[in-house]
Amino acid sequence: MTRTVIESATKTVIIGFDEPFCVIGERINPTGRKKLAAELEADDFTTVERDAIEQVMCGATVLDVNSGAVFTNRMAADPRYADNNFVEPPLMKALIERVQAVVDVPLCIDSSVPGALEAGLKAAYGRPLLNSVTGEEDRLELVLPLVKKYNVPVVAISNDDTGISPDPDVRFAVAKKIVERAADFGIPAHDIVVDPLVMPIGAMATAGHQVFTLVRRLRDELGVNTTCGASNISFGLPNRHGINAAFLPMAIGAGMTSAIMNPVRAQEMEAIRAANLLMNHDANGGEWIRLAKVLEAMKDGASFAEASQAASQATSGRRGGRRSRG
Amino acid sequence: MTRTVIESATKTVIIGFDEPFCVIGERINPTGRKKLAAELEADDFTTVERDAIEQVMCGATVLDVNSGAVFTNRMAADPRYADNNFVEPPLMKALIERVQAVVDVPLCIDSSVPGALEAGLKAAYGRPLLNSVTGEEDRLELVLPLVKKYNVPVVAISNDDTGISPDPDVRFAVAKKIVERAADFGIPAHDIVVDPLVMPIGAMATAGHQVFTLVRRLRDELGVNTTCGASNISFGLPNRHGINAAFLPMAIGAGMTSAIMNPVRAQEMEAIRAANLLMNHDANGGEWIRLAKVLEAMKDGASFAEASQAASQATSGRRGGRRSRG
Repeated sequence: MTRTVIESATKTVIIGFDEPFCVIGERINPTGRKKLAAELEADDFTTVERDAIEQVMCGATVLDVNSGAVFTNRMAADPRYADNNFVEPPLMKALIERVQAVVDVPLCIDSSVPGALEAGLKAAYGRPLLNSVTGEEDRLELVLPLVKKYNVPVVAISNDDTGISPDPDVRFAVAKKIVERAADFGIPAHDIVVDPLVMPIGAMATAGHQVFTLVRRLRDELGVNTTCGASNISFGLPNRHGINAAFLPMAIGAGMTSAIMNPVRAQEMEAIRAANLLMNHDANGGEWIRLAKVLEAMKDGASFAEASQAASQATSGRRGGRRSRG
Repeated sequence: MTRTVIESATKTVIIGFDEPFCVIGERINPTGRKKLAAELEADDFTTVERDAIEQVMCGATVLDVNSGAVFTNRMAADPRYADNNFVEPPLMKALIERVQAVVDVPLCIDSSVPGALEAGLKAAYGRPLLNSVTGEEDRLELVLPLVKKYNVPVVAISNDDTGISPDPDVRFAVAKKIVERAADFGIPAHDIVVDPLVMPIGAMATAGHQVFTLVRRLRDELGVNTTCGASNISFGLPNRHGINAAFLPMAIGAGMTSAIMNPVRAQEMEAIRAANLLMNHDANGGEWIRLAKVLEAMKDGASFAEASQAASQATSGRRGGRRSRG
């Protein structure tokens, strides 16, 4: 059975066919979060620290850390800030240090800038997940040597120099190419976590069915773990959380083993916990029963994060975080 | 592609691999509903009529009608009422007539009493679904001739004279036997809707996984449609609706095509509508968008049934029912 091992200084997380679904928290990402980007530009990491703690409280066992910020004010003063190769490496280092200071889960180092990936690899404790390589030739040549050098697993996104194919067979072929190229570098298939690319179902009616079929093939034919940006599926549609909350159990049933997603939403996390139970990946239903208490507490008006934190403090005092938010 | 055709006087419902999931409303069932049984004993059909209309408003496209009442008061006065062969046939006839007077969806005639099944077959318009035959020899010999005589589809439950096997391979073999025996009577596989039997996951940790595997086999190897009593899966566990709401999309992803369930619960119906969308069984997302409006209306405190009815009346005035509840 395929097992992808990710580690922090103190914790090991396995992404695997026989493991609970791995929730990779997506919140620490200034792309499209203008307020967060502005805070980072002002060297303010308050939101980053809060998001790190909240996501872990809500059930993320890995945190994605994305350094893709655009610093418009600094750019005006210093043209070097127009280049993300200049902006991202020191920002990634700072983000990882801040996050590691408040939580102890493994990290997923997320950037399109190779210098930022390497800065992240140097700053992260343990065995982080690298995010990402694609089937594009220049990305393969830049990222796979880093994966090999640091002996880390990597997210492989199924697009190549021709772009993202709407044909799932082409996306499968791209994934296969990446796995084969990685093997040339001595990187085993169990260290490749394939993202088969989830299209919005509002734009492509077959998008859901495509992913379920692709995930099954990736698992059966390539023996790899899989991940996705889960919320893409519902882009542009009303009541998105309801779509996500059905998509995730269906993807899990098809064999998907992780997702990069927002764990602060109760509806999606409830669906994942139920799917873990239904896949027999929740021994004695312990996690389900714990969640049921959190959901019960939300009836009094608490947010999912608040109720999760309260439940967490009631059982362990500091579960999942190095320090309380207090 | 397998298609099971069910009809009322005016409506056709297809259970099929390429169709939206068929929701069979379970509410009209005095078994375990003491208050309803008492009403029926007093010849009061108010709840039956209300449940028929509400279930259709909420999205049931077929209604199960179960006549399994125990009339304790009448029994005291007349010992014949201790025998369900005496009680159920006239009750089934009355139930079906009452239900057909208020809604126009096809019905599922549900009894363990052969006389009640035949009374139902005589009273129902169109082509009802018969519920059920099992792999027990006496049931096969009693029910399959009715199925043939009235040319109706039938629910086949995967237990036999040895009981319900915990081994899914045995349950598959029982289903296969029923399909073969039906063929001997000239009944085609597309008129058999197999219930693979859903065990409570609280009692058997592999219950979910078992069903998903069984459904896939029943579909691929026997080419039959499938159904189940969906809420069994969560029996005895906290936050049951959350488990049901993940189980249904996972079962649909595995190939299940119908369920006998309570459609008056928004969480389960939301999960099913989302799964239909994700399976590309909701053209242009029309049903999803309609549901999203109903869920939005519930934020003002309306129940799912009330909000569904309001939405229904806003669009068609009388959608799904022969008359308004007024």
